[in-house]
Amino acid sequence: MQKILERVLKKITPSEKEQKEFNSVVTEIRNLTDEIIKPLGLSHIIAGSFSRNTWLPYKKEFDLFIMFPETTSRQELEKKGLQIGKKIVSKLNGKYEIAYAEHPYIRSEVKGFQLDIVPCYKVKSAEQIKSAVDRTPFHNKYLDNNLGVLAPDVRLMKKFCKSIGVYGSDLKTEGFSGYLCEILIINYGSFEKLVKEASRWEPGKIFIDLERNGYRKFENPLVVIDPVDRKRNVASALSPYNFIKFVEACKAFVKKPEESMFFPKPKKISKIKIEKELKSRGTKFFIIEFEKPNVVDDIIYPQLRKAAKRLADILKDNEFMVLGYDIHADKKCYIFLEMEVWKLPNKRKLTGPSIFDVKHAKQFLEKYKKDRIFIEDKYWTAEVDRKFILAEMKIKDSLSNKLKDLKSKGIPSYIAKSVSKGFKIHKTLKTLPKGSEEFIYNYLNKRLL
Amino acid sequence: MQKILERVLKKITPSEKEQKEFNSVVTEIRNLTDEIIKPLGLSHIIAGSFSRNTWLPYKKEFDLFIMFPETTSRQELEKKGLQIGKKIVSKLNGKYEIAYAEHPYIRSEVKGFQLDIVPCYKVKSAEQIKSAVDRTPFHNKYLDNNLGVLAPDVRLMKKFCKSIGVYGSDLKTEGFSGYLCEILIINYGSFEKLVKEASRWEPGKIFIDLERNGYRKFENPLVVIDPVDRKRNVASALSPYNFIKFVEACKAFVKKPEESMFFPKPKKISKIKIEKELKSRGTKFFIIEFEKPNVVDDIIYPQLRKAAKRLADILKDNEFMVLGYDIHADKKCYIFLEMEVWKLPNKRKLTGPSIFDVKHAKQFLEKYKKDRIFIEDKYWTAEVDRKFILAEMKIKDSLSNKLKDLKSKGIPSYIAKSVSKGFKIHKTLKTLPKGSEEFIYNYLNKRLL
Repeated sequence: MQKILERVLKKITPSEKEQKEFNSVVTEIRNLTDEIIKPLGLSHIIAGSFSRNTWLPYKKEFDLFIMFPETTSRQELEKKGLQIGKKIVSKLNGKYEIAYAEHPYIRSEVKGFQLDIVPCYKVKSAEQIKSAVDRTPFHNKYLDNNLGVLAPDVRLMKKFCKSIGVYGSDLKTEGFSGYLCEILIINYGSFEKLVKEASRWEPGKIFIDLERNGYRKFENPLVVIDPVDRKRNVASALSPYNFIKFVEACKAFVKKPEESMFFPKPKKISKIKIEKELKSRGTKFFIIEFEKPNVVDDIIYPQLRKAAKRLADILKDNEFMVLGYDIHADKKCYIFLEMEVWKLPNKRKLTGPSIFDVKHAKQFLEKYKKDRIFIEDKYWTAEVDRKFILAEMKIKDSLSNKLKDLKSKGIPSYIAKSVSKGFKIHKTLKTLPKGSEEFIYNYLNKRLL
Repeated sequence: MQKILERVLKKITPSEKEQKEFNSVVTEIRNLTDEIIKPLGLSHIIAGSFSRNTWLPYKKEFDLFIMFPETTSRQELEKKGLQIGKKIVSKLNGKYEIAYAEHPYIRSEVKGFQLDIVPCYKVKSAEQIKSAVDRTPFHNKYLDNNLGVLAPDVRLMKKFCKSIGVYGSDLKTEGFSGYLCEILIINYGSFEKLVKEASRWEPGKIFIDLERNGYRKFENPLVVIDPVDRKRNVASALSPYNFIKFVEACKAFVKKPEESMFFPKPKKISKIKIEKELKSRGTKFFIIEFEKPNVVDDIIYPQLRKAAKRLADILKDNEFMVLGYDIHADKKCYIFLEMEVWKLPNKRKLTGPSIFDVKHAKQFLEKYKKDRIFIEDKYWTAEVDRKFILAEMKIKDSLSNKLKDLKSKGIPSYIAKSVSKGFKIHKTLKTLPKGSEEFIYNYLNKRLL
C-alpha cells in the first residue's frame, strides 16, 4: 500500500511552481489587507487548506477572514466587511459578487484564484461564537498546532473521498469536510491507518474525541467531536449513504490497494443507453424541469429533495406507486420520478364507515349520493370515478397550483416559487439538455456492495 | 298501499286446486307415516310454510320430522331415521337421496313435491335441543299459537323479500328465513306496518323480543330473539348488505307502493354488454373456474367467499391491486377478480433494516448480496427482480400448489381440494358457460341507493 500511496501523492501534490505562485498571491493579498485594515484596528487570518499545505492542485481557492471585536454591532460588521472586501478586490483589479451565508460576504476572482473575504467576530473560545464563521480561526489554530507532518496524509484522504464522491460537507454532497479529513488523520496518525480502521467501522459505533471531553448524544453514523467545541459533531453532515460508501471503499482498498481508486475513470454516459435501461426495467419515468431558484446549493438541494419526496408521496396517495426518485440542479432544477404504476382504471372504490356508525354513514351517503353505493362486509362502500387516470395528469395538476397551495402541500418555499412560474415534464431523455442526464445514470448505478 | 297488497296477494296465494292437491298429498303421507312409526312408539310433525298456509305457490315442498325420545343414541336415531324415510318414499314410489345437515336425512321427490324426512329428538324445551333440527317442532307450535289470521301478511313479506333477493337464511343468500318473516309479522301485526317501521330501521338499533326475555348481546344489524330460545337471534344469518337492501326496499315501497316491486322483471343479461362495461372501467378481470365440491351450498358459499378474499389478499401482497371480487357456483365454481393493477415492472424495491441495526443489516445484506444494494434515508435498500410481472402468473402460481400448501395459504379445505385437481382462468366472458355470467352482471350492478 505504501508504494501506491507514494505514487498517488506525487500526482496530487501541487508542483513547486504552483506552490510559489500561490504563496506570492497570498503574500500580496495579506500585505494589502493589513494596509487597509490595520488603521481600523482590525486583524485578519488566511484560512483553508492552503495555509496548512493540504490543498489539492485543482483547488485554487482560499478564504480571508477579517476579524472584528465582539463589541461591533452585527450591522456594522456586515457593512464594514463588505466595504473592506470590495476595497481589496478593486486594488487587485479583480471581479466580485456579494454572496450570502450567515452574513453577506465578498466572493471574488483575483489573479486566477477564488477568494472569499468573510467578516467574523474575534471571540474568546469556539463555544462562544456568534456565527458559524467565527469558529474558523479556532480550527485554523488547532490544526496549526496538531497537524505537524501529516499534511500529505490529509491530501490522500481528501483525494480518496473526492474520487468516491463523498468530499464536501455541503448539503448537496453530504460528505466529509476538509476539516473532518484533517481531524480523522490526526486521530489515526496516517491515511493508511485510517483506511484500515475505517474498513471495520460500523454505523453509530464510532466516537472520536481527540480532547476527550465531548458530548455523546449524537445520532449520526459517525461522531467526531470538534476539538474546539465539545458540543459539535464535525461529521454531522455526513449522510448514512456516504458513511457506508466510504467504509465500503476502505474495505475494497485495504483488500486490494489500487492507484485507480484515487483516479476514477470518467463515466461513459449515453442518453440512449440510459433510456434503454429504463425501458428494460418495465417502469415509466417523468423528469420535471423548472428554473433554478437564485439561492445557494445548501438551500436548493435540501428543498429539492423534500419537494421530490412530497411529490412521490402525493402520487402514492393517489395509488400511482413510485419505485424511486432523484433530484439534480445545474442550470435548471430537475426532479426524476420512476413509476411502478402510472395508469389506473376509471373507477376506484372507497371504503366508508361501518353501517353501525349511523352518524358517519349519513355523511358518507350524502357525500357519495351520486355514485354507486353498496356494502362490503359491514362497511359502506362507494365506487367513484377516478379523477386522474394517468400519473402525469396528477403531477401536472399538483404542480399547477398557486404558490400558496404548493406551499401548503409541503413543497418548500423556493421550489414552490419557481414551480409556480412554470415547469415542464420530460418523458424521454432526448429533450433533456446535454449533460443533465448524469444524475439519472447515477440513480440507476448506485450500488454499495 | 292496501289495494296494491290485495292485488299482489291474489297473485301469490295458491289456488284452491293447488291447496287441495297439497292437502291430499300431505294427508296421505301423514297416514302412511303413522302406519310405519306408531308401532315403533314414535310420532311425527309436518313442518314448514304449508302447515301454516304461508307457502308461496311455486314452493312445492315440505318437511316431515320423525321425533325420537331423548334416550335414543345418536347412532340409532340416524340409522332408524334413514330406514323410516326410505320406507315411506318407497311405499309412495318416490325417488330419494341421502343428504347431510347436522345428521343425514332423506331428501325425496314424491308426487311432485320435494319432501325432506328428518329425524329429530323430542326434547322438553327449545333451549335443551341436541341439534338444530330439534328446534323446529317448537317453532311450529309457537307459530300455530300466535300467527292467527296473519298468514296472508307472511306471504306478502316472503314474496317481497324474494323479489329483492333477500329471502332465505342459507349461507348463500344470507337473508330472511321464513321463520324470521313470520316472527316479524307477528311483532308488527301486518305487512303494511312492518314495511313502514322497517323503512326507518337503523343497523344495530332494532331489538325485537316477543317474549321479553332475550339476551341483548348480539352484534347483528337486526336482532330478533327466538320466542322459544332466548339465547338465539333469529336474524343472525342476515348480512349487513341484505339488511340495508331490505330497509331501502321498504323506504322505496312506502314512498311509492307499486305492484312491480313484488314481481321484478327478469334481467336482460348479455355477455357482450357486460364485457363492454368491464372494458370501459379500465380494469382487467380474471375468472377462475374449477369443479364444484360435492357438498351443500351452506359449505360451498362461505368457503368460496373465503377463498376469493384470500386470493385477492395474496395478489395485493404482491402489489397487484384488486378493485373487487365476487363468487358463484352453479355446475362449477367461479371466482371473479377485477384488477386495478395487473402488470408491474421487472424490478421492485425492498426496504431493509436501519444501518444502525447492524445485526439485521448483516442478514439483509447476506440475503440480497446478488442484488443491487444501496441506502435510502438510513435504511438498507435492495432492488430485486420481480418474480411475477403479471397478476395472471401469480394466480396460476398460487393455485398450482399442492393441496397441503393451498390449505396453508388459507384456501378452505373443499375449495383447496377441488382447485388442486385443476382450474382454468377465463380472460373473456366468451369462454364462460352460458348463464354463469349473471353473477358478474350483479357484481357490476349492485347498488343500494
